[in-house]
Amino acid sequence: MPHPIIFDTDPGVDDAQAIAIALRHPEIELLGMTTTYGNVDVATATRNALLLAELAGQAVPVAQGAAGPLVKPRHPAPAHIHGANGLGDIELPTVKGKADPRSAAQFIVDTVNARPGDVTLVTVGPVGNLAAALQLDPGLIEKVRQVVVMGGSIREGGNVTPVAEANMFNDPDAAARVLTAGWPLTLVGLDVTHRCVLTQSHMDRIEAGQGRPLGRVLAESYAFYRNFYREFLGIDGCCPHDSCALAWLLRPDLFTTARGHLGVATSGIAEGQTVFAPEGRGFIETRWSGTPLVDVCLGVDGDAVSEWIADTLT
Amino acid sequence: MPHPIIFDTDPGVDDAQAIAIALRHPEIELLGMTTTYGNVDVATATRNALLLAELAGQAVPVAQGAAGPLVKPRHPAPAHIHGANGLGDIELPTVKGKADPRSAAQFIVDTVNARPGDVTLVTVGPVGNLAAALQLDPGLIEKVRQVVVMGGSIREGGNVTPVAEANMFNDPDAAARVLTAGWPLTLVGLDVTHRCVLTQSHMDRIEAGQGRPLGRVLAESYAFYRNFYREFLGIDGCCPHDSCALAWLLRPDLFTTARGHLGVATSGIAEGQTVFAPEGRGFIETRWSGTPLVDVCLGVDGDAVSEWIADTLT
Ligand SMILES: [Ca+2]
Ligand SMILES: [Ca+2]
Repeated sequence: MPHPIIFDTDPGVDDAQAIAIALRHPEIELLGMTTTYGNVDVATATRNALLLAELAGQAVPVAQGAAGPLVKPRHPAPAHIHGANGLGDIELPTVKGKADPRSAAQFIVDTVNARPGDVTLVTVGPVGNLAAALQLDPGLIEKVRQVVVMGGSIREGGNVTPVAEANMFNDPDAAARVLTAGWPLTLVGLDVTHRCVLTQSHMDRIEAGQGRPLGRVLAESYAFYRNFYREFLGIDGCCPHDSCALAWLLRPDLFTTARGHLGVATSGIAEGQTVFAPEGRGFIETRWSGTPLVDVCLGVDGDAVSEWIADTLT
Repeated sequence: MPHPIIFDTDPGVDDAQAIAIALRHPEIELLGMTTTYGNVDVATATRNALLLAELAGQAVPVAQGAAGPLVKPRHPAPAHIHGANGLGDIELPTVKGKADPRSAAQFIVDTVNARPGDVTLVTVGPVGNLAAALQLDPGLIEKVRQVVVMGGSIREGGNVTPVAEANMFNDPDAAARVLTAGWPLTLVGLDVTHRCVLTQSHMDRIEAGQGRPLGRVLAESYAFYRNFYREFLGIDGCCPHDSCALAWLLRPDLFTTARGHLGVATSGIAEGQTVFAPEGRGFIETRWSGTPLVDVCLGVDGDAVSEWIADTLT
């Protein structure tokens, strides 16, 4: 039975690969994509989402959403990581299609309400669109099948601050809303995505397997992203953050999780940090155990996930 | 050459053991103790500090300090860990001596100024007395030899919240002041103290080595503390948190450290968390690399530290 999903994204090189998986995998029914600022501005995110669907030859609605955080000012997009165009600054074909007229939040509300209990939300950028959808329809928490969030870090430390992961830091107020909403939610954060490394040989397989033009876009944008990993992190290869969210959805057997209470620091030096209190463990005050129970990924067979990604796209 | 130290403490079972080390070790010149609320209220802390010096037959000034945090309301003392009397609720002899008439902060200021460049501050409780001393004399940062802080956690997670260690959580505003003051400082936190476990056989050696009455107090209070570790943490033995600060001072060869920038979250869900940015690593904004450089302990030969403690007290 396939998973009907809405993929909420800020493409982004690793987003592009995850989108390709969502477009190709037989067990995923991609109901639509919703876009947000993050790796790029939201208009660029929308263009990239439309482009990737067109290159795959699929008609998938794309609804544009958040141009910035709920509360705080927006941080500049990290052009040295994903390129100014989000896809490694490679030359891109012109997009023919247009975005859905609805906002991302309205698209989520409409789509979930059309199939109550069926739809999984997979979000791999700042989570403002999900917060906005909850504002429009708080009843979503009872109507989604589940929510998978790529973001956060429990024990691994951060990537944009010593303690915060980029998606959570980019909109900590939205994250605090979404992670504590009380819907069935799994956090797929740096604790697992940093254990997965996609190498050049994985990418060679993907490029050959996808063929032109989608394979070329995935491979050439990856080359740019890989330079960032080499130069700034000293790693030969890239962490396929966003594809890990889909790996968790389809291959949960490759992950280990813990259940507990999650919160997000919304200001100060720990801004954007996800704070996890394992279920049943007592602390000095109850404030850490007051939020709804969720699952967080803490361990993964990283090699198997990288193989699964390459196999899926080959 | 011995280390002249002021020992700032909230005794507390593990404090008591560290005080015994400070009183006994030939390489330590204990100039005085300053007391704070924390494991107990401050009057009890003062009584315990006076008592331990008397039981060791030494005349050491004890100056009473903070009765609560700088800014936020005080949390109740954790009587199930250290006992209501701070020493495992064992029967205690009456104290004969009296506290120094000066406040802890004034005692620190006077003592450091009397021997500029000589004095090491070792603090093993909430750090309000050091913050108050900096308020009286900001020039202390140039006049202390170094500051050793037992507290915080970089990668280990917290003990009173998912991310905060007790001393830092008990007064995060004071901690933010003290850890970023710009004096030569080393943080000895849960990353190392949780690697050290003092067993019953270590305590048997200490009890025999110290003889009555000090050995009895250390051993009987330890038994209470050990029950807490067994019941709440499932560990057979206790982490000698506060003794680790002195172990670092005298045996730095047993530790590994990293240099970087430290900050303390003062509110929200991460309240009391120590956030560490390694020197030279870039983050999305400069706010994490703006604080003065300090050293943090990240690794330790825990067995060797436990042996060192038992050897020192035997
Ligand atoms: Ca993304
Ligand atoms: Ca203490």
